[in-house]
Amino acid sequence: MEKIKKIGVMTSGGDSPGMNAAIRSVVRTCAYYKIECAGIYRGYEGMIEGDFIELNARSVKGIINKGGTFLKSARSKQFMTKEGRQKAYDALKAANIDALVVIGGDGTFTGALIFNKEFGFPIMGIPGTIDNDIAGTTHTLGYDTALNNAVEVIDKIRDTASSHNRLFFVEVMGRDVGHIALNVGVGAGAEEILIPEEDLGLERLLESLKRSKESGKSSSIVIVAEGDKTGKNVFELKDYVNEHLPEYDVRVSVLGHMQRGGSPSCFDRVLASRMGVKAVESLLDGKSNLMVGLINDKIAVTPLSKAIKGQSKINKELIRVSDIMTT
Amino acid sequence: MEKIKKIGVMTSGGDSPGMNAAIRSVVRTCAYYKIECAGIYRGYEGMIEGDFIELNARSVKGIINKGGTFLKSARSKQFMTKEGRQKAYDALKAANIDALVVIGGDGTFTGALIFNKEFGFPIMGIPGTIDNDIAGTTHTLGYDTALNNAVEVIDKIRDTASSHNRLFFVEVMGRDVGHIALNVGVGAGAEEILIPEEDLGLERLLESLKRSKESGKSSSIVIVAEGDKTGKNVFELKDYVNEHLPEYDVRVSVLGHMQRGGSPSCFDRVLASRMGVKAVESLLDGKSNLMVGLINDKIAVTPLSKAIKGQSKINKELIRVSDIMTT
Amino acid sequence: MEKIKKIGVMTSGGDSPGMNAAIRSVVRTCAYYKIECAGIYRGYEGMIEGDFIELNARSVKGIINKGGTFLKSARSKQFMTKEGRQKAYDALKAANIDALVVIGGDGTFTGALIFNKEFGFPIMGIPGTIDNDIAGTTHTLGYDTALNNAVEVIDKIRDTASSHNRLFFVEVMGRDVGHIALNVGVGAGAEEILIPEEDLGLERLLESLKRSKESGKSSSIVIVAEGDKTGKNVFELKDYVNEHLPEYDVRVSVLGHMQRGGSPSCFDRVLASRMGVKAVESLLDGKSNLMVGLINDKIAVTPLSKAIKGQSKINKELIRVSDIMTT
Amino acid sequence: MEKIKKIGVMTSGGDSPGMNAAIRSVVRTCAYYKIECAGIYRGYEGMIEGDFIELNARSVKGIINKGGTFLKSARSKQFMTKEGRQKAYDALKAANIDALVVIGGDGTFTGALIFNKEFGFPIMGIPGTIDNDIAGTTHTLGYDTALNNAVEVIDKIRDTASSHNRLFFVEVMGRDVGHIALNVGVGAGAEEILIPEEDLGLERLLESLKRSKESGKSSSIVIVAEGDKTGKNVFELKDYVNEHLPEYDVRVSVLGHMQRGGSPSCFDRVLASRMGVKAVESLLDGKSNLMVGLINDKIAVTPLSKAIKGQSKINKELIRVSDIMTT
Repeated sequence: MEKIKKIGVMTSGGDSPGMNAAIRSVVRTCAYYKIECAGIYRGYEGMIEGDFIELNARSVKGIINKGGTFLKSARSKQFMTKEGRQKAYDALKAANIDALVVIGGDGTFTGALIFNKEFGFPIMGIPGTIDNDIAGTTHTLGYDTALNNAVEVIDKIRDTASSHNRLFFVEVMGRDVGHIALNVGVGAGAEEILIPEEDLGLERLLESLKRSKESGKSSSIVIVAEGDKTGKNVFELKDYVNEHLPEYDVRVSVLGHMQRGGSPSCFDRVLASRMGVKAVESLLDGKSNLMVGLINDKIAVTPLSKAIKGQSKINKELIRVSDIMTT
Repeated sequence: MEKIKKIGVMTSGGDSPGMNAAIRSVVRTCAYYKIECAGIYRGYEGMIEGDFIELNARSVKGIINKGGTFLKSARSKQFMTKEGRQKAYDALKAANIDALVVIGGDGTFTGALIFNKEFGFPIMGIPGTIDNDIAGTTHTLGYDTALNNAVEVIDKIRDTASSHNRLFFVEVMGRDVGHIALNVGVGAGAEEILIPEEDLGLERLLESLKRSKESGKSSSIVIVAEGDKTGKNVFELKDYVNEHLPEYDVRVSVLGHMQRGGSPSCFDRVLASRMGVKAVESLLDGKSNLMVGLINDKIAVTPLSKAIKGQSKINKELIRVSDIMTT
Repeated sequence: MEKIKKIGVMTSGGDSPGMNAAIRSVVRTCAYYKIECAGIYRGYEGMIEGDFIELNARSVKGIINKGGTFLKSARSKQFMTKEGRQKAYDALKAANIDALVVIGGDGTFTGALIFNKEFGFPIMGIPGTIDNDIAGTTHTLGYDTALNNAVEVIDKIRDTASSHNRLFFVEVMGRDVGHIALNVGVGAGAEEILIPEEDLGLERLLESLKRSKESGKSSSIVIVAEGDKTGKNVFELKDYVNEHLPEYDVRVSVLGHMQRGGSPSCFDRVLASRMGVKAVESLLDGKSNLMVGLINDKIAVTPLSKAIKGQSKINKELIRVSDIMTT
Repeated sequence: MEKIKKIGVMTSGGDSPGMNAAIRSVVRTCAYYKIECAGIYRGYEGMIEGDFIELNARSVKGIINKGGTFLKSARSKQFMTKEGRQKAYDALKAANIDALVVIGGDGTFTGALIFNKEFGFPIMGIPGTIDNDIAGTTHTLGYDTALNNAVEVIDKIRDTASSHNRLFFVEVMGRDVGHIALNVGVGAGAEEILIPEEDLGLERLLESLKRSKESGKSSSIVIVAEGDKTGKNVFELKDYVNEHLPEYDVRVSVLGHMQRGGSPSCFDRVLASRMGVKAVESLLDGKSNLMVGLINDKIAVTPLSKAIKGQSKINKELIRVSDIMTT
């Protein structure tokens, strides 16, 4: 393998807080090792179009605390075709880019693996997604910030809930996994938490709410993951409870995209900085097809193929803690 | 009129940040003038039930920075009946309460006026509502905090919007008036602001979005007041734009109740403190049926009857500023 | 007077939150009226050096919510000399700049007046300073944000103070005026507030702290303006109380520069937007030597000469409110 | 050993965010296992005085998001004497308290061990301190929140620093260990980080600042741990740089106590909830003299004796990351 002289970095998939910090780290690590670095705009889409920008240590000044991604992100249908990927390869070669750091989620890594297989292009992945649903790391980039964003807003909703003795169904992100719902639920002191991994059952929810009311609890927050097992979305849940427990004054709040914005937490900034260094150093060490992750508080790498296929498991201990807290 | 020896204080209607600070101020001002103070739980409902608590200067320690209202708030159908109001009067008398400070909105004041008319009970009002829709004050209690809450969240949504070149319709509170939408829209740098007072027209919205796209604007935030004149809610607006401008990736965010929660801004805490002092001192001066407000940065009083009937007007200058900012 | 075709905008003196929003407003208003706009870096220093940048509506995208000033600020000794000002004039002329909007405080306006007198250059001022010490406006740009910054941190200090039954002396900004100290003190529920305008007297402070202790108050926050009348700084106050009231566990916190940073409040963003429009429109109307201010909640102008000489008065009513709150 | 029927919980040493959440967890876990729980005010001091309060699941409502500790904290000289500890034992026995959960730091645990040795009283420890300097856990309670508090304020200081091209020395907590300084420094993008574990040397600091200036860096933030190895405090550092690099405009900010206040992060709330459950369950399992900690993201226990003697090591990898980031 030839020596790497220029690394391209891009963000892809849903944006997450810490992506800018990770880009900064990749750029500065390149500068440290005196190799060039190019930013690729709009993920694979910009790669195909050759929408690149030369980045040096100064270019990434003042972005460590900014949410979103200044390189922007996009989905690319073209990259799913052989022709698209060929164009991307040609564009990278034309710009003398020798290796890639891709920051994104599951879909991003799948594309990276195919690209590497076809063109032998060295690629390292950094898990940037708030959902924390990728195997090979205990924390994806942006997850910690998303938890704080959600908890902060639910604290405000709690003010209103307890002023009016109301029941709030609060929907948080997490289509397939309940990490956000479970942690936010425990962190916000929610009375119930509905996650995709467990089917609490609507009957049990009603029972629990009834008991809450009888025990004198004046207000309640129920956290619902987007993809919870009850098969009802948060508005249907409201109607259901309205029908069966008319004594409750029920409201709904869908937190939505605000969860993924905002200045990253210190944890996510530090994690991003560590991951960026490891990604670049791995490439310089001749490695490829790995994802940088955090395992047992240490930076570690996992084959991208496992990062994709694997699935992070919900913390059973935390479900138990949640049950005890809502006694 | 006999000398007032004990004042009751309550919060009613939707909760707003600063209500606790206002209660604190009423209680401490009573202590300063060495008269008693009772808190009335759950607004008129608790008044009817005699659900009172004796409050002294220590009781309100540590609440100036808390959102919501520790006296809680509720709607009361009973108080709309003569019988209900008679019960309320009897309960107040039984507890030796001579006068009232009611913190709430339009509906709260209407009830207060009827009650005063029937029983001659001295009452002062403090405008506690985030909507800023009450005549006789340039700022209702909680309005400033609600603006900051909304702007802070929209800043986060902006991170996502610009990372993905998306269009967001963001619904903010304000069923009848566009104060929140207009100020939040200008404050968050929104590309369009739809308020109940003005019918921008859907055609113009489409035109404006088209021009935005052509001028290279990559993302847009459109602020929509709950009660905007287009006759479409925020989800219908999304569908409408999806249909007519398919090149836009449109998302919706309904801010909802988080706008009214959270720690009050310094402005709202100071305003609450000033209003509470004036309310108590007015009662001690033998006044009644007035609302304490802020006019030209000075504490002033307005007859409750005008506070109800009047309507705060939208700031035309600010609409013009908004137009210029989105050139 | 010739028609204005290009306006220069600069920030000078201590930075304040909202300066970026004001620059944005000036730039966009120029775009709206189809005239050119140039940013001047580092205040008068950059003016002398001809350190300018052409700004259009897109250049100021995404800065409304950023603290500080992207045009930077500096003090200029050169501008105090006739030679310096001549150079500045030559540089402006060379860049075809016809008029100026200067954003800053008292010193900035003094320089502007001299410059206008010497060269007849049209100038409008915008009061950007957190101290709120300029006549002709009830609110300077950044003042509201600074209050929120300070109150938020003092809320945190309160957590520690009450966990340990401690007394904290907290120094806030305000060398000559006590606006910040007084409002922050009331907003944070401080037990005492020491401001430059009033000499509370150290004896009275000791008396008050003694009474506090006896009445069972377990912790206390005393807010001290930088320039308070006791003649002692916050560390000397600590030593003084340590000596005379050894039963108190006294700590000191100097809030310092964090008060002037951070994302501006909604109020400051809206105020900045309104002020920028007025400043440009005034220049286009042929006016000069005026400061844009907020009077009775309306945008108004005041001769720069009065903005300088005048002095904003402390709110006596608020001192009274503070006394009552700490009964 | 007899069956435990009543557990006492207390906080001791410096307060840290998450202490309230931990108390809540202990109380609710007791309720879950249908045993009694008593809160002990002011640490060992209140234990000696028998200053207890009965706590049930409702008593701890609404405290999970509050900073500080509602049970308050204090140092106790009495508890260092045999007589004091005998009094404490008698008071616990008189209140039928069978076991203790103590939340605090190193000093708290030392006292606990002596107390257990003398009276055989079952005790579990929870590490509540922002310094993260206790062996047996990767995260002490409050550490994550303190990092976010510090980074948020430094972001604001950065606004001012870059507006004025200034150099700021920012002192953060950490007398013996540099965890806070190192993480905050990386998270805030500081140009230099001075920690107690490493002697960077003043010469190297000057060199680095000189190079910064030459490379066109306009502003700098240097993070200094309270106990850094240079032997100079932050004000002396300022003077030193002023003398040797007069071209720098140097300022100082001491973050101080605001770092330990405020609403805990989601991470700290969840950690507190998990630790409280484990502490109570360990006591019910007949265990004692252990500290609950987080090791490899799992709740684990460590002998209190090792928690005291051990020392958490600074993360060398992070020092390297910091060096690379400031290339």
